[in-house]
Amino acid sequence: MTLRADGRGAAQLRDITITRGWSAQAEGSALIEFGNTRVLCTASFTEGVPRWLKGEGTGWVTAEYAMLPRATNTRNSRESVKGKLSGRTHEISRLIGRSLRAVVDTKELGENTIVLDCDVLQADGGTRTAAITGAYVALAEAVEWARSQGILKPNAKVLSDSVAAISVGIIDGTPMLDLPYEEDSRAETDMNVVVTGSGDFVEVQGTAEGVPFKREELDSLLDLALIGTTELAQIQRDTLRAGK
Amino acid sequence: MTLRADGRGAAQLRDITITRGWSAQAEGSALIEFGNTRVLCTASFTEGVPRWLKGEGTGWVTAEYAMLPRATNTRNSRESVKGKLSGRTHEISRLIGRSLRAVVDTKELGENTIVLDCDVLQADGGTRTAAITGAYVALAEAVEWARSQGILKPNAKVLSDSVAAISVGIIDGTPMLDLPYEEDSRAETDMNVVVTGSGDFVEVQGTAEGVPFKREELDSLLDLALIGTTELAQIQRDTLRAGK
Amino acid sequence: MTLRADGRGAAQLRDITITRGWSAQAEGSALIEFGNTRVLCTASFTEGVPRWLKGEGTGWVTAEYAMLPRATNTRNSRESVKGKLSGRTHEISRLIGRSLRAVVDTKELGENTIVLDCDVLQADGGTRTAAITGAYVALAEAVEWARSQGILKPNAKVLSDSVAAISVGIIDGTPMLDLPYEEDSRAETDMNVVVTGSGDFVEVQGTAEGVPFKREELDSLLDLALIGTTELAQIQRDTLRAGK
Amino acid sequence: MTLRADGRGAAQLRDITITRGWSAQAEGSALIEFGNTRVLCTASFTEGVPRWLKGEGTGWVTAEYAMLPRATNTRNSRESVKGKLSGRTHEISRLIGRSLRAVVDTKELGENTIVLDCDVLQADGGTRTAAITGAYVALAEAVEWARSQGILKPNAKVLSDSVAAISVGIIDGTPMLDLPYEEDSRAETDMNVVVTGSGDFVEVQGTAEGVPFKREELDSLLDLALIGTTELAQIQRDTLRAGK
Amino acid sequence: MTLRADGRGAAQLRDITITRGWSAQAEGSALIEFGNTRVLCTASFTEGVPRWLKGEGTGWVTAEYAMLPRATNTRNSRESVKGKLSGRTHEISRLIGRSLRAVVDTKELGENTIVLDCDVLQADGGTRTAAITGAYVALAEAVEWARSQGILKPNAKVLSDSVAAISVGIIDGTPMLDLPYEEDSRAETDMNVVVTGSGDFVEVQGTAEGVPFKREELDSLLDLALIGTTELAQIQRDTLRAGK
Amino acid sequence: MTLRADGRGAAQLRDITITRGWSAQAEGSALIEFGNTRVLCTASFTEGVPRWLKGEGTGWVTAEYAMLPRATNTRNSRESVKGKLSGRTHEISRLIGRSLRAVVDTKELGENTIVLDCDVLQADGGTRTAAITGAYVALAEAVEWARSQGILKPNAKVLSDSVAAISVGIIDGTPMLDLPYEEDSRAETDMNVVVTGSGDFVEVQGTAEGVPFKREELDSLLDLALIGTTELAQIQRDTLRAGK
Repeated sequence: MTLRADGRGAAQLRDITITRGWSAQAEGSALIEFGNTRVLCTASFTEGVPRWLKGEGTGWVTAEYAMLPRATNTRNSRESVKGKLSGRTHEISRLIGRSLRAVVDTKELGENTIVLDCDVLQADGGTRTAAITGAYVALAEAVEWARSQGILKPNAKVLSDSVAAISVGIIDGTPMLDLPYEEDSRAETDMNVVVTGSGDFVEVQGTAEGVPFKREELDSLLDLALIGTTELAQIQRDTLRAGK
Repeated sequence: MTLRADGRGAAQLRDITITRGWSAQAEGSALIEFGNTRVLCTASFTEGVPRWLKGEGTGWVTAEYAMLPRATNTRNSRESVKGKLSGRTHEISRLIGRSLRAVVDTKELGENTIVLDCDVLQADGGTRTAAITGAYVALAEAVEWARSQGILKPNAKVLSDSVAAISVGIIDGTPMLDLPYEEDSRAETDMNVVVTGSGDFVEVQGTAEGVPFKREELDSLLDLALIGTTELAQIQRDTLRAGK
Repeated sequence: MTLRADGRGAAQLRDITITRGWSAQAEGSALIEFGNTRVLCTASFTEGVPRWLKGEGTGWVTAEYAMLPRATNTRNSRESVKGKLSGRTHEISRLIGRSLRAVVDTKELGENTIVLDCDVLQADGGTRTAAITGAYVALAEAVEWARSQGILKPNAKVLSDSVAAISVGIIDGTPMLDLPYEEDSRAETDMNVVVTGSGDFVEVQGTAEGVPFKREELDSLLDLALIGTTELAQIQRDTLRAGK
Repeated sequence: MTLRADGRGAAQLRDITITRGWSAQAEGSALIEFGNTRVLCTASFTEGVPRWLKGEGTGWVTAEYAMLPRATNTRNSRESVKGKLSGRTHEISRLIGRSLRAVVDTKELGENTIVLDCDVLQADGGTRTAAITGAYVALAEAVEWARSQGILKPNAKVLSDSVAAISVGIIDGTPMLDLPYEEDSRAETDMNVVVTGSGDFVEVQGTAEGVPFKREELDSLLDLALIGTTELAQIQRDTLRAGK
Repeated sequence: MTLRADGRGAAQLRDITITRGWSAQAEGSALIEFGNTRVLCTASFTEGVPRWLKGEGTGWVTAEYAMLPRATNTRNSRESVKGKLSGRTHEISRLIGRSLRAVVDTKELGENTIVLDCDVLQADGGTRTAAITGAYVALAEAVEWARSQGILKPNAKVLSDSVAAISVGIIDGTPMLDLPYEEDSRAETDMNVVVTGSGDFVEVQGTAEGVPFKREELDSLLDLALIGTTELAQIQRDTLRAGK
Repeated sequence: MTLRADGRGAAQLRDITITRGWSAQAEGSALIEFGNTRVLCTASFTEGVPRWLKGEGTGWVTAEYAMLPRATNTRNSRESVKGKLSGRTHEISRLIGRSLRAVVDTKELGENTIVLDCDVLQADGGTRTAAITGAYVALAEAVEWARSQGILKPNAKVLSDSVAAISVGIIDGTPMLDLPYEEDSRAETDMNVVVTGSGDFVEVQGTAEGVPFKREELDSLLDLALIGTTELAQIQRDTLRAGK
């Protein structure tokens, strides 16, 4: 009996593809796909830090998330035309930044800045989790690049671990992994979980969309999320090992 | 042995005060204090709904959060002067709105709108959790008012439950409840938990500030949070029973 | 025969309350009430001056006025959400700043800045005059604080006088003092007068709302205003003498 | 003995020129000069009123004031480029609008709107008073135009009086009329007075720039202002009588 | 002797690739590449027109151009974060819209709207000409889609011709076709030419970057441009004939 | 047989008037009229350059274009009130700046900045071409002024040539010079041409408004434009020779 429209089992990820080095311009980049969701992640490495960090001897990592106007099923107005960012954009940009900083040793980075741009080219649910997972690969590429340029020392241990993220939710009473848009929009509870390669939590954000959720439901969602992030961590490792 | 600067035990809330009917103008209002944190919550009840909801027969509940420029230890620029809201303001406003909608039956509300304004007059950590807890009281007052005015039917069951929120965090390895600013700023992990009067979860937002956290830590933080929200729910009940 | 809805005589102020030290965070603060009008005034003292004043050896005093969205009878949109200040907000902020600077000796202040924030928590007419009157108390507290910290010399004569403000207007042909919203909205002529403790004028702003006014009317309004500001100056003195 | 740089007596206006019909496009227009101050005033008459006035049977008159970037001695950034209006621009626009509405019977205007645009082409003090004085002429032209087009009835008494404005100030202890920039910038007290053709007050705005001012000073400034506005009213009458 | 860094002849285009149907969400889409320049063009077809066109019986076609922050060699700030569009973005968006409208019969389109979004994923010169050329393909797809859906009649002749664009410039005295960034930045004269499939001009925009240009130079640039647009028109035809 | 509403021949300019030194404040200024189109051009000369040019030893010339709200037949909202510049304003400002820089030797200018402000006081077609033509005169005046002040050396050759601009278009199949609004709005093709005093091209911007245009039409429009700019160059020379 198939539970899901796309034939997946409850604990199964969508097809995950990570294309390294998609951009010829950026110091690091990855085009990541979670099924039909496609996010272009670039990492811009620049020497120097924002003014408020100068002289501290530590670096800075930040992120910006955005969606192309026609990434979704109906067109959204551009935030640049409206002249302001939505709360959603702000919220996700901050989440991505925090998630990556959790695995960065800014002392080892020295007074350098890495900006991660995560632009959703096509959206079908899970854009923020794809963005975090892809941004880590772009970040790792940029660190590698800086090492190859002699900007970072060969043994600088900038990244303490890898980081990946996945969405989980309860649909018709059943906890499910990696929700596409159709499932996400009718989930009773929706959770985004950010986990390191070692399996520790960086962020847990669970929201009751309709009915409040019970402690047991929370527990089974976390179990499911860990299955997904373990798999994603492996794909990240394989991708980075394979080279561009 | 005292663990905390203010002499509290790890599982103890700060002094909580809720002053109902603080505003002579709003349909509902509460000045809530979590220790030195003071938030003025008002509920504005208006007939009619935003254009996109017209004719659906359901109501709308939304929230806006803001901080006075000198609520904090050093002055922040006004967002109205800067001409845009920060990501933080957006994020918290959305959280408060979602939290309250989780206990509102918008069908029962009919085509009416309630806007919750949560203005932080003084900030000492936990402003978002105080805002949610106080906004619920203002919301309940506004619903009562609408019933007394005959705008809502006497038996309209608009509120399905109460809702309250608290922060928890790990400080020097120890999980603690209801963090003031000083603790919050040095917590390793920081979590905001929104819980209904029945003890179910509405939102769980946990963030590793430095080191990623383990499943067991997450569990003990959730335990602690439930102690706090159970107590807050009781205070809300007492406050509402007491009348203005 | 009672002329006014609240039973006051034409030359009588509403109940005036000034609560010093309302804020635990600011260097100076006062919660001022003119009847139902409540304004929270905080004074933020910082060392240093804006760039354009550097090296001049003089200080800077400025003010910002704002109203909570539900301070009034119906809710107003937040200026931070709209992304711009209204003309009214600009106008009143500038008036408060000018009024306070009229009694400040910026040479004696040295290269320090004091920002007065006047946030209207509840509005019932006369918010700008309450703001000026309360801001003076917060300002005096902040100067006292700086003296106690040794930032200002013990004998620095920063304040040359006190300053207070009141509204007057002609209602149904009769000049009246300190108009609540209901009177203000039907006044034929409306005047705000800012006066020093010594009884000299700092600002006189009179506006014909409907019919232009005669020289004699102007004169009698000024007479009335001076009665009010004399009383306010006494309340300010008493409040400051009493200590926090 | 000459008191003033330009050889005028204390109670003497600068050369005043009003050129009617300067614009070929607007329903009413006047280029007004107070010495080197030049303001282009246009009146745009449109049928209909803003949404909030519809169906009330009354019209609307409003004004916008602006300054060309190089109207002054050094160039100012454009407000359109900065993306926001300064407080000063807001304040003056509102003053002009109020001043004109004081002599307009909006019932007689019917559901029509007149927008006065006052653009300062060259600035040398007194731009707001020149703007009010010139805007009245443009307004009178636009009313005349609407009558000639049959939009207003031949006997519609839209304008109940004329209105003009002048600045006065105390310089080196002497009250003076119609201050150019050089005088304005060193005046101890500065007042703008708006007066009808019949000699009644519409607005009185006096500001102590340095030392607070006494009641007698206020009185002598008002005397002086009335000399100026009486003369301006005569020039307005002559200009309008002369036709385009 | 090779004239150009990439080995091309002066009258030779870079490798041109057009991938139809790149987006699963939009009614029409094309990823177009001019060498390293990559632009994602989507066409959003919606029934109805902007308010100012309602009831005219004609449709509307418009375009928006934007660049990802790291499309270029160094990162640019996002326009959505800065809160305003640059003049360059405005200018190019308007150019694309005008170019496409030149081949659209809005009567045949009926009261429908097509928005073309051209997002530069990677930039290496000629982004606006690639955008126009790709947007035409997306537009043609969207028209085809609307016909297949029965929104447009089978014989509606919405597109009167095709349209493509190319850049030309004089580099070291030699006119050259299709400039990559490196050439564009040192061109003496730079021209963008928009041409229909029939070889008529839609837009000619020539700019002297340093030295003004002569009539003969203008003529030889136009000759060169026509070689390029003829070839692009053929590629567009082939792409559309091939189907998705 | 008269072809044009105003009785002009197809190759005839409207009445052109340039009033030098219109502004008493700016270093250079000209009020230019092309028939009913009136543009006030001022040149602001300041020592120093924008930060990004410091230490390069070269100057900077830039321009800003704007239109008064009632320059046109119906009133437009102010861009300062809307809080953003339209694409059209941006586009024209950039065109004026580029056109003037084409005849400026920034090395000879030294580290000085000249800002040209072109404010349309009355609009009847051709405002951008009038602005360029008038701005050149203001620019020449400002250079002269700087030389007279000893800021520029007596022999500094800042201006390599003059520059002027004109519009041409095809109306009812006939190419015509210098289009007023009525003609411009029904032109099939519309072109703005910027030409130096020596007759070389600085900018050529041709746009098909309806039907794409042929190479022969482009050629005849360019011929016509050169007739116009030759005449304008002569008027500029005469005006500058005549002195203020």
